[in-house]
Amino acid sequence: MLNFDKLSLNIPDTTKPRVVIIGGGFGGINLAKKLSGKHFQVVMFDKQNYHGFWPLLYQVATAGLEPDAIAEPLRKMFGSDDYEDFHFRLVRVTGIYHATNTVATLIGDLQYDYLVIATGTKPNFFGNEQIQRYSFPLKHIPDALNLRSQLLQCFEQASMTKDQEIRHSLLNFVIVGGGPTGVELAGALAEMRTHILPTDYPGLDFSKMNIYLIEGLDRVLPPMDPKSSEKTHRYLEKLGIVVKLSTLVESYDGLTVMLKGGEQIKAHTLIWAAGVSGALVDGLPAESVERGRILVNPFSQVIGFNNIFAIGDIAFMKTEKYPRGHPGVAQPAMQQGKLLAKNLRRLIKGEKLEPFEYLDKGSLAIIGRNRAVADLPGNLHLSGFFAWIIWLFVHIMYLVGFRNKLVVISNWMYRFFTFERGTRLIIRPFVRKGDKSARDFFKKYNPDS
Amino acid sequence: MLNFDKLSLNIPDTTKPRVVIIGGGFGGINLAKKLSGKHFQVVMFDKQNYHGFWPLLYQVATAGLEPDAIAEPLRKMFGSDDYEDFHFRLVRVTGIYHATNTVATLIGDLQYDYLVIATGTKPNFFGNEQIQRYSFPLKHIPDALNLRSQLLQCFEQASMTKDQEIRHSLLNFVIVGGGPTGVELAGALAEMRTHILPTDYPGLDFSKMNIYLIEGLDRVLPPMDPKSSEKTHRYLEKLGIVVKLSTLVESYDGLTVMLKGGEQIKAHTLIWAAGVSGALVDGLPAESVERGRILVNPFSQVIGFNNIFAIGDIAFMKTEKYPRGHPGVAQPAMQQGKLLAKNLRRLIKGEKLEPFEYLDKGSLAIIGRNRAVADLPGNLHLSGFFAWIIWLFVHIMYLVGFRNKLVVISNWMYRFFTFERGTRLIIRPFVRKGDKSARDFFKKYNPDS
Repeated sequence: MLNFDKLSLNIPDTTKPRVVIIGGGFGGINLAKKLSGKHFQVVMFDKQNYHGFWPLLYQVATAGLEPDAIAEPLRKMFGSDDYEDFHFRLVRVTGIYHATNTVATLIGDLQYDYLVIATGTKPNFFGNEQIQRYSFPLKHIPDALNLRSQLLQCFEQASMTKDQEIRHSLLNFVIVGGGPTGVELAGALAEMRTHILPTDYPGLDFSKMNIYLIEGLDRVLPPMDPKSSEKTHRYLEKLGIVVKLSTLVESYDGLTVMLKGGEQIKAHTLIWAAGVSGALVDGLPAESVERGRILVNPFSQVIGFNNIFAIGDIAFMKTEKYPRGHPGVAQPAMQQGKLLAKNLRRLIKGEKLEPFEYLDKGSLAIIGRNRAVADLPGNLHLSGFFAWIIWLFVHIMYLVGFRNKLVVISNWMYRFFTFERGTRLIIRPFVRKGDKSARDFFKKYNPDS
Repeated sequence: MLNFDKLSLNIPDTTKPRVVIIGGGFGGINLAKKLSGKHFQVVMFDKQNYHGFWPLLYQVATAGLEPDAIAEPLRKMFGSDDYEDFHFRLVRVTGIYHATNTVATLIGDLQYDYLVIATGTKPNFFGNEQIQRYSFPLKHIPDALNLRSQLLQCFEQASMTKDQEIRHSLLNFVIVGGGPTGVELAGALAEMRTHILPTDYPGLDFSKMNIYLIEGLDRVLPPMDPKSSEKTHRYLEKLGIVVKLSTLVESYDGLTVMLKGGEQIKAHTLIWAAGVSGALVDGLPAESVERGRILVNPFSQVIGFNNIFAIGDIAFMKTEKYPRGHPGVAQPAMQQGKLLAKNLRRLIKGEKLEPFEYLDKGSLAIIGRNRAVADLPGNLHLSGFFAWIIWLFVHIMYLVGFRNKLVVISNWMYRFFTFERGTRLIIRPFVRKGDKSARDFFKKYNPDS
């Protein structure tokens, strides 16, 4: 077997300034792309070997897209043909030693001239370990595959029981969080209920399948314009989704969702889309961190440092227009990444840095077939079919990689004309952390695996 | 959590004869399709919820196709719209009680009028537990995803070590078994070595990457014509694959492949494509089983029974032309499934059954870009570009589902023109059965998962 002591980062020595980027998300890849050329050696660390296009993750979970369609291998994006001094390492960063300009990983340390933290976010369970244990988050590709298997297995199991109470609870799906992920997932599930499931499971009565969308604030899509929220709410109800506003979840034991106030919902599936927190890296002083995110100045410099930067969701840049930071979507990360590349070039030339100004290109959310909402610049609010067309166009446009675009367009056209969702395979075991009974169930069903 | 005692098969009562099919492979689906109509109630059991197109599995393992492209959900194939009395159950069959015409599953028993065993095969390690533990089989979709992750992780790790010996061993890939799976996999790996890997891993010297293909008999593709074997052998060597004929593997401890005769190869990856054995079901008398397969008469009836049948790879039908049974490929299974549907109709009408006669449509194997071999009916042997075109055409034609055809054609066209393989994502943990160090390594790298 592999002797792990024999592994090392193996980054070639260089006379160029070395930029170390932690994370291959929207911020990291846009920065890395623009840094190509003769001026820098660029090193990227990530725990995954691919960049994921997370806005489409809910479609993987609802069997509309294959996981490979929304992810692009990082090494493919920065292949040596067009990018000479780029070095990707599939390794976890364990900490920063800023006194010595060193970043530590599991297999060794590396000195940097410039360090960029672009680690994004992780699901936030607000300290509720029980919910963390039993709920399904939707943050990474394995999450989406787990959720897809869970949804399908619930239907399979529901068709294999005569116990009304159990069947009812298998067909109850509770989504916590009324942001884009929650809304889009609820819409996709409702579409499945209408178009796919009755044909796949003729023995089940899908009028008994309930989709709950639970939001703590007083409207869905709270970051969007109230008009769009209202429109979305109406769309959701038209699709038969039970929307509960100003409602908090108190606990979930894998079977009963307890809402604050005493109401209970029996459900085998709770999807947690209620919030995220920054994926922090150890080693920054306390004064550089606020509310789980890293404080930066308008040049993305971490407060207290000249050569450490943070971009994207992990960065907390307070500006007059955005006193609570920029929205946690792809656009600020992409724009910050691109600007930082320019600023790093200025920095080595001794030029003045350009402050970041967020160009808001608008927000979009889709609620099933032919229905979407869009807040566009200039206080323009669209909904319905036209917003839906914009949503499709924007998501294809920003999708990385020609192959991915091709596969996604093929899938969407196929779905549009057939109402089908082709990828409803159960390929991952139904194993939840700490859920022994589920693991036993799987083993019982798959003794060879 | 789910109370498993509350699960039951839940198959509606019927006055029609009930056909129970175990397995949704090539035999099972062709039988089930042809049984639609008013005459039978059809029940299908499978441990997976999809039908897999296994001839393309090696392309999933080598990042050429997404897993969802080569699999079709069984419920989608037999949707209620066109098939009224069909019932799929995702459940493992535990045994047959032929005295009472009953099949037992994990969640209950079911009486049958006709039982069809179409369970196919499983990898055969010939009792070598060490090889079973450390090698990578290639039989199911999770196998292909595991192998894909393993291949990519070997390259990632090789680029993170300065230890020559370890790097060498990470870049040695040993494929055991010179049948179609082994040959096609070796070819695909060699193509990756030429076209993808040098760009992805500029720090690695791929002239040090070795692909071994080890076959126990005296030629590759033993079921094909000797001319095709010879041609294939030359193609493989042209691609730089080390072919070792008349060579047996004695042991493998995860690091050293010991060949019979004393030669050793240091390799982190051993792919086991050396053989399969029947996936038997408990409960048949010993006289119905020979060499791990179920003995059947020319009507696919299991020896000793009138209402139990076996089709496809699990069936052992001795005929004059095929005294050792039919080849273990898709065609005999498909043809037997179709004929059995006809014969079951004849059976309920009291008509005479038609014996099976295998129509050999030929054999094909692909050895990378533009190169394939084909044995066609009429003793016609093709090789090179024309055989390659036939291979592509046949595989697209037999692929189930319009969406799958579309996705596979998109991928192949993309690959043909760009030399790229888009789906090289590591999405499954590198965990081998019993390999604690690998599990620890993964945990260390992915503490949150």
